[in-house]
Amino acid sequence: MATTSKFHPTESSVPPAGAVNVQLKEPKGFPVHVQPLNPLSFLLRASQIYPNKLAIAHSDAKNPVFYTYGVWAQRVQNLAYALIEAGIQPGDRVAVIAPNSPAIADAHHGVIAARAIICPINTRLTAPEVAYILEHSGARLIIVDHEYKHLLPPTQARVVVCDDTGRAGDPYEEFLASGRRFSRERGWGGLEWEADENAGAALCYTSGTTGRPKGVLTTLRGSYLAAVANAYETKMTPDSVYLWILPMFHACGWTYPWAITAAFATQITLRTVNMSQIWYHFLKSGVSHYCAAPTVQISIVSAPEARKVPRPITAVIAGSAPTAQLIGDLETKGILPVHVYGLTETYGPFMKAYTQAAWAAMSLEERSRQMARQGFSFLTSEPVRVVHQAAEDASDAPLVDVPQDGRTVGEIVMRGNIAMKEYFRDADATRRAFAGGYFHSGDLAVVHPDGYVAIQDRSKDIIISGGENASSLAIEQELAAHPDVLEVTVIARAHPKWGERAMAFVILKADAAPKWKGRHAEFGDALRKHAKGRLPGFACPEWVQVVDELPKTSTGKIQKVELRKMVAKL
Amino acid sequence: MATTSKFHPTESSVPPAGAVNVQLKEPKGFPVHVQPLNPLSFLLRASQIYPNKLAIAHSDAKNPVFYTYGVWAQRVQNLAYALIEAGIQPGDRVAVIAPNSPAIADAHHGVIAARAIICPINTRLTAPEVAYILEHSGARLIIVDHEYKHLLPPTQARVVVCDDTGRAGDPYEEFLASGRRFSRERGWGGLEWEADENAGAALCYTSGTTGRPKGVLTTLRGSYLAAVANAYETKMTPDSVYLWILPMFHACGWTYPWAITAAFATQITLRTVNMSQIWYHFLKSGVSHYCAAPTVQISIVSAPEARKVPRPITAVIAGSAPTAQLIGDLETKGILPVHVYGLTETYGPFMKAYTQAAWAAMSLEERSRQMARQGFSFLTSEPVRVVHQAAEDASDAPLVDVPQDGRTVGEIVMRGNIAMKEYFRDADATRRAFAGGYFHSGDLAVVHPDGYVAIQDRSKDIIISGGENASSLAIEQELAAHPDVLEVTVIARAHPKWGERAMAFVILKADAAPKWKGRHAEFGDALRKHAKGRLPGFACPEWVQVVDELPKTSTGKIQKVELRKMVAKL
Repeated sequence: MATTSKFHPTESSVPPAGAVNVQLKEPKGFPVHVQPLNPLSFLLRASQIYPNKLAIAHSDAKNPVFYTYGVWAQRVQNLAYALIEAGIQPGDRVAVIAPNSPAIADAHHGVIAARAIICPINTRLTAPEVAYILEHSGARLIIVDHEYKHLLPPTQARVVVCDDTGRAGDPYEEFLASGRRFSRERGWGGLEWEADENAGAALCYTSGTTGRPKGVLTTLRGSYLAAVANAYETKMTPDSVYLWILPMFHACGWTYPWAITAAFATQITLRTVNMSQIWYHFLKSGVSHYCAAPTVQISIVSAPEARKVPRPITAVIAGSAPTAQLIGDLETKGILPVHVYGLTETYGPFMKAYTQAAWAAMSLEERSRQMARQGFSFLTSEPVRVVHQAAEDASDAPLVDVPQDGRTVGEIVMRGNIAMKEYFRDADATRRAFAGGYFHSGDLAVVHPDGYVAIQDRSKDIIISGGENASSLAIEQELAAHPDVLEVTVIARAHPKWGERAMAFVILKADAAPKWKGRHAEFGDALRKHAKGRLPGFACPEWVQVVDELPKTSTGKIQKVELRKMVAKL
Repeated sequence: MATTSKFHPTESSVPPAGAVNVQLKEPKGFPVHVQPLNPLSFLLRASQIYPNKLAIAHSDAKNPVFYTYGVWAQRVQNLAYALIEAGIQPGDRVAVIAPNSPAIADAHHGVIAARAIICPINTRLTAPEVAYILEHSGARLIIVDHEYKHLLPPTQARVVVCDDTGRAGDPYEEFLASGRRFSRERGWGGLEWEADENAGAALCYTSGTTGRPKGVLTTLRGSYLAAVANAYETKMTPDSVYLWILPMFHACGWTYPWAITAAFATQITLRTVNMSQIWYHFLKSGVSHYCAAPTVQISIVSAPEARKVPRPITAVIAGSAPTAQLIGDLETKGILPVHVYGLTETYGPFMKAYTQAAWAAMSLEERSRQMARQGFSFLTSEPVRVVHQAAEDASDAPLVDVPQDGRTVGEIVMRGNIAMKEYFRDADATRRAFAGGYFHSGDLAVVHPDGYVAIQDRSKDIIISGGENASSLAIEQELAAHPDVLEVTVIARAHPKWGERAMAFVILKADAAPKWKGRHAEFGDALRKHAKGRLPGFACPEWVQVVDELPKTSTGKIQKVELRKMVAKL
């Protein structure tokens, strides 16, 4: 990978010679043994211990830039001062509309250093959705990447455009330079450490398939502890290289902007999910870690560039459970899947499918079934519970755990330091979500006798066929094992005799598509035959439809609601 | 290593079938997003995720025992109930006088589960010293290993003797069984989670070379964050096997009782520091981690059993800096030294000599000089400062950092979540130690231009020779590189011309001792010649004395004060 020698940061990005103080002004009134937790501490440590280590490589952009931890920290400090000079007060929201790039990485640290709240906005939203979030969040300043200016509504907020050049003349660079001038070299000591570790850190809006997006407010304490857990659970070290495939705007990149920095690792920012770029970095840049949803993981292993990687890569998978097929494909290439589960409301990952030694002796299929479960809570999260769903009118009744029988379905609920603080400016939604003193995930699961939690389906994903409950997830797991299937999703479709029956939508693998061209009905028969050996009769798909693509949300989740609408019209 | 099948735990150590709840009664009044930190959470997680994994192997005792995480957690729960039934109230102190063994490992979790404070007492102290600590701490219950009963004074406190058998009939086992009966299978849910994360966790007495020992009170929050840092910084995983060489009574084993459990690793408890046992486990039990002071490390690499280990072992070194000789000897055997620094007042390790990539290209000697520095603060600790020492009467004056010039000597001071809460029942000592809002370590150091903190000496360890300041540590580092030197320590001795001059006390290596028998003066000449090539003249030892052993404190630190007394009489 290219090194920092290829790029000279702007004058105001270079720390003054001999600047060594990495401590902010301490809040008053704390005893010697208490320091409010704050994920900013990780970047401060990195800039002190590894000032000359490569922190960010933004190598694939039109204007590649490379920052060491020393330079990056200076830029973050400049950003904090620039925000304060622009009138940002503690607790104010600062919105960021940007793809994976240095500016949004900066903002995860600089906004917090100004004691404000970062509000990263999904670049795949429509202009009216962005307008809603900007208004609802009350963002007083917006950092927008030049490519997404068209998403901006007319606004009273200060707008800082980033041309993503890193060069003088870029409005974002001018903004940082204004911070450096305002700082008058007071350095970190001129900024105040937030005294309340439960103050807001980030405000991330859920993409919400129904209704308006909701603003998930997280805290400094939670971000700190979640980042530590992510660094620990995925074994990141100073030797690690993290590739940004997951968008940083998605639940603050699952706290990885802080976790990577806590580990003193290097991060590579990719503006787009581009398979050639991804495979270039896998093969040439020493990548050791990345995060992505299964649909993206499927594209990665199916890319023409895919081959065995020179260094083992840890692939963190969340969004939905990986299939045996995907796990096998990843492992063949030297990519080690780690299955985690969480929601925006839990800072991203909250649980992990902890591996047991005994699994090593299992067949890939059996092992994958174990790994596809959601498992147990992370190092710094409280144990999840799976509880009987209370009637709507009994929301204050105590929660009752389901038995560990692998059969009784309940709802996953969680609390503790890695649960959100609230839905911003939505007391009703917060109260509903926190019924019984736990956050209600809406995800339905069983607890197996070995204690592993396994998601069955959201209630609407259960197919009730002839009085039997079939899990669309379980059906998808089995259909994905067919050698010609690239990606598959299953929904319930009304059936005159059985009430409901499964319908499968399949994308064929590139090399299998020609074989079945014009013979999709025959492929359907082949897939049903495959299913019969693996699933009870009531769970076998009655209908199979081959498609070129599946409708997905802006964060890559398959939109079953769209498929259901389509099927309802058939 | 032997497995659990060789030992059947007592009836009351076996968890009830189907017991699955691992959550204590939640404290009232906390929002969904805040859970008070408590290191007990690690054992609860381990018992849930890895109930059948080997947690503790106490294999070398007269009565070997082996506990899985499931069984161990049940024993800890029994202990908590037994303590409560015995009248222990939240905040009470429970003393433990025991060598490394399951009982003291239990106590690190069970005492906290009863919301009490563990007070581990050094087994190498004299009976009067133990009596002082028991009285000062106000311990209401004492768990004492059968081998150390003689240390107990007449006491009003309840005494529970542990015969370290793990078998029915052992008074300690009966105590645990009483807890199980009292529990009436209410399980974890019958115990209360401590609401105040800043409540006391442990009370460890410093061995204090001068004056009475002082009681260092730590907190639950601090113990949690220190344990996470130790697990992270030493890369412990479920696959790790930790060998107890460091006594658990020493600063709560540097928080490793919790760190090992946080990592789901296996721990092997050794009652004594026995080289044959240590090397047996290195070679046969898959040991991956241990902690020890340099003097113990020297014994390990010099043992006749020493050879290349089959699995890389991480050796955490603290107490004083490792010499190049020791680092080389460890590395040759496949043991990877990690140099950390801290004090009882900082939960043990607080800093680490973080490795830089550039060091790999250095000679062993040069690399060792880098590694021997104390470095930077841990993941979860605040940056240390090295400050000009204020005059005694100006203790409230703001602290002023020394320049990063590698020459200006100041005092290491620290604060934050991994600094102690107070000296128990000693407000004066606490106030003095916390002057200026930082804990004062008493260790003198410089800050190098690269930011690494390097201890010079405690002020009395500096040798002032002809107006020049010579560091006894630096002299020791160089003398240790002589091929015949096993261990060396240097003190100042009065000199008629120069004021002071260095005097070296040397233990020869076993294979070199015969060569110099009766020729110690010649050895002294050889060592001085060696020193002249490496040290300025004023730092070369004027006197060299070969000895068979060095006076050490109960925790293995060399007692220079004893050597000084001896020399004063010469």
